[in-house]
Amino acid sequence: MILLSIDPKSKTPAYRQIEVGIRKLTDDGTLKSGERLPSTRLLAQKLGVDRTTVVRAYQELWASGVVESRPGSYTTIRHRLPPGRTSPSAPAQPAKWVEGPPRSKRLYEDFTLLRGKHRPAPAGGVVDFSGLSADRGLCPARDFLRALKVLVGEKGREILDYGDPQGYLPLREAVARRMRTHGVRVDADEILITGGAQQALDLILRWLGSPGDPVIVETPTYGLAVPLMRFHGLTMRSVPLGPEGMDLDVFEKTLKRGKSAMVYTIPTFHNPTGLTMPPAARERLLGLCERAGVPLVEDGFEEELKYFGKAILPIKALDGSGAVLYLGTLSKVVFPGLRIGWIAAHREAIQRLLAVLRFSCLSGNIPAQAAVARLLERGEYEHYLRRVHTAYRRRMETLLQAMKAHLPQDRVEWTTPAGGYTLWVRWTGRRPVDEETLVARLLDGGVRVSPGRFYFPGPVTETAFRVSISNLDEAAIGEGIVRMARVLNGIRG
Amino acid sequence: MILLSIDPKSKTPAYRQIEVGIRKLTDDGTLKSGERLPSTRLLAQKLGVDRTTVVRAYQELWASGVVESRPGSYTTIRHRLPPGRTSPSAPAQPAKWVEGPPRSKRLYEDFTLLRGKHRPAPAGGVVDFSGLSADRGLCPARDFLRALKVLVGEKGREILDYGDPQGYLPLREAVARRMRTHGVRVDADEILITGGAQQALDLILRWLGSPGDPVIVETPTYGLAVPLMRFHGLTMRSVPLGPEGMDLDVFEKTLKRGKSAMVYTIPTFHNPTGLTMPPAARERLLGLCERAGVPLVEDGFEEELKYFGKAILPIKALDGSGAVLYLGTLSKVVFPGLRIGWIAAHREAIQRLLAVLRFSCLSGNIPAQAAVARLLERGEYEHYLRRVHTAYRRRMETLLQAMKAHLPQDRVEWTTPAGGYTLWVRWTGRRPVDEETLVARLLDGGVRVSPGRFYFPGPVTETAFRVSISNLDEAAIGEGIVRMARVLNGIRG
Repeated sequence: MILLSIDPKSKTPAYRQIEVGIRKLTDDGTLKSGERLPSTRLLAQKLGVDRTTVVRAYQELWASGVVESRPGSYTTIRHRLPPGRTSPSAPAQPAKWVEGPPRSKRLYEDFTLLRGKHRPAPAGGVVDFSGLSADRGLCPARDFLRALKVLVGEKGREILDYGDPQGYLPLREAVARRMRTHGVRVDADEILITGGAQQALDLILRWLGSPGDPVIVETPTYGLAVPLMRFHGLTMRSVPLGPEGMDLDVFEKTLKRGKSAMVYTIPTFHNPTGLTMPPAARERLLGLCERAGVPLVEDGFEEELKYFGKAILPIKALDGSGAVLYLGTLSKVVFPGLRIGWIAAHREAIQRLLAVLRFSCLSGNIPAQAAVARLLERGEYEHYLRRVHTAYRRRMETLLQAMKAHLPQDRVEWTTPAGGYTLWVRWTGRRPVDEETLVARLLDGGVRVSPGRFYFPGPVTETAFRVSISNLDEAAIGEGIVRMARVLNGIRG
Repeated sequence: MILLSIDPKSKTPAYRQIEVGIRKLTDDGTLKSGERLPSTRLLAQKLGVDRTTVVRAYQELWASGVVESRPGSYTTIRHRLPPGRTSPSAPAQPAKWVEGPPRSKRLYEDFTLLRGKHRPAPAGGVVDFSGLSADRGLCPARDFLRALKVLVGEKGREILDYGDPQGYLPLREAVARRMRTHGVRVDADEILITGGAQQALDLILRWLGSPGDPVIVETPTYGLAVPLMRFHGLTMRSVPLGPEGMDLDVFEKTLKRGKSAMVYTIPTFHNPTGLTMPPAARERLLGLCERAGVPLVEDGFEEELKYFGKAILPIKALDGSGAVLYLGTLSKVVFPGLRIGWIAAHREAIQRLLAVLRFSCLSGNIPAQAAVARLLERGEYEHYLRRVHTAYRRRMETLLQAMKAHLPQDRVEWTTPAGGYTLWVRWTGRRPVDEETLVARLLDGGVRVSPGRFYFPGPVTETAFRVSISNLDEAAIGEGIVRMARVLNGIRG
């Protein structure tokens, strides 16, 4: 029998006293490896404590590797490694191969650069216009849980098992219905559910892009697409963005420079600029891609965040030849942490993408997909979307009004989005200003923005920054723009 | 005002009658695009139905794209596309580029081959020894939900937002504690949470493998690793598996053939064979990799499913130089559909892998990670593990006893695993039998097994198949082996 006692007057809880006691007896060799501990019932009785106290102590000992327990058997002291063979600590220096090949090295550099892009905030705090995640305050936490609970009740454990790697069928059906409301006629078998729009893009690049292939992108473009394409060994051919989206004359010439693996565009509420490509330009872009036999990747990540003016149909709605691979996401309306996005494409294309998904991660998170499907089916999604619309429309109006009222129009110009979260501010003062200086001075003045250079795959051709309203209320937006104006006015234009 | 009436005697529910009515009025042009529908309150009053009935009808109409509704505004008939521009249907034939480059084409072939590997079952039904997913009946559905609910209560919406891309910190801490119980001393910053072990392997291949690089694998090896490595453009160098794991003499020679990007091994309850590499061989394998400066990828996917004999420490427990990248998964004990696995490695290696994960999918599913962390923290995981142990140990015992009692030992031999789900049956009859024939005859006899050829990266060197107990109870296992014996005895050995 082991020697242990409990001091009832001690501030240390009883379970901890038991845990420490047994640990000591193990360390000094009193309890040897393989030795049985008394049953929890017996020890509790001997020590005059509740049995749950002993259970807790044994759990702690188990969790830290001191004891082990086998089904239907006693708890025993864990077999220790012989000294000198005891699990070594990690060396300070990693092995040489850690850097990986050049493309991995470069990706890591991009990663650390992006991670470090934000200097610490000044003492007075900042208004942060740099984020791009949906305002979690607008997301339906309780409804999500309720949906999950109902599903487990209805479907049982099936819902937590491996599921259809193409995505939970009712979710694919709901997404297809949702796409039809945007004028895109697709069925569930033309949808692949992905871990957000980012995985969707990655899957397409893995499937269609071979190292050395050119990819046509608009410039500026989505910041996280640039290092990813580079990692895939793709060469980015930039087409400048005008007020009506990609400059199609330049695009046409770029197409003729030789076969590209794909064209990547964000025609609606473009990130970072907030610009939307008009219908006629969409038609021309699609026609050019079709004739050149080049797939068109349409990133519609903010498709549903239209606040002002008439709806413009996605390019996918015009696609009669299967030229368009459409990326969508629910991360802007329901919770981003659920990681639910999709690709809508020709069913043959979907099967190819499914093969890549299957081997790279087996399948997605089925319970999350099923819960979200339920929110879509029951029209609750539409309800959240309204709430999100109302909130973001007000914020965008506030932003645009404040900018008009306060910013010096001889020094900066900016875009006027019809939806989404972001707009683009460009330095137009007569004296050039370095972007890093500009962004740093804004931060010193209490405003954080996203530096423009992160959105250029090649040379940075303008001094600009991105402003996002996704996580700021109207008061903060107003205050932020006043601060921004103060800084801009203080720079010699 | 629109003309609608409800037939209260109809079997069609009232909401459906309203839905169909409005749809008809839209189709025949009575209701024009942009036209307002009456408020739900007003229409309910006019039709003498409950307001929720009208709300339901409007939701159905919205879901199928007939109407649209804007925040703070009326429900209106959706703007239709002009005829001829109406969202075209997908063409029967996809565009030519759908096949992708050769490596994507090959991956798709592998995918369709694997998908089609199971011929339809004969009329009498089959005992299916081919699966490898955890028995969902043993998984904790209610506990998972309860954990999620408590978390939302405690942490609020934060838990459903974008989270730490490296993985929810308390989960990393719990996994690190868990690894310490297997003799591996790691901290939370040496853990990367992944979407299952499959994504873990894929991330490592993306980070360290460049097209053309050789990778050393044991043969047979994990079936889904083979097409994935091929997709990455890697060349597989096979080392045959003996009763003590990889043949280390052959391995040593293979290492000398030139720099390999990595070595991939499953030392514990190897898939497909169920074999476990003894401690001395592990030490030698690690030493060889360290001296050659080649990373050792240790796939420990069934580490915790040890039923018989003494625990053998993972190779990672011996790793003092950071040479080992360890893959783990929770899919064999908690729900596989949650997609939770991890990599344990040097913290510098983890940072590199994190960069790849960040750009390829932003982050994992945080709510699932948080809920599982809670199950681990509270010792509930240990409880499930015992349940799983008890069940699978009994099944494995039943399998081994039945095989010994019934199978013709002049025609087949098989491995004797100390844990895990699978074992490997090899044809040893004097007359050679074609594996496809063997597997087909087994199926005709009412037993499905997993064909051996799927586990060979190169030429298939033996007629063999994999038997798994993951989803069969003891009665089914007994019956399955009786059937198997009947078929094997019927083949001229």
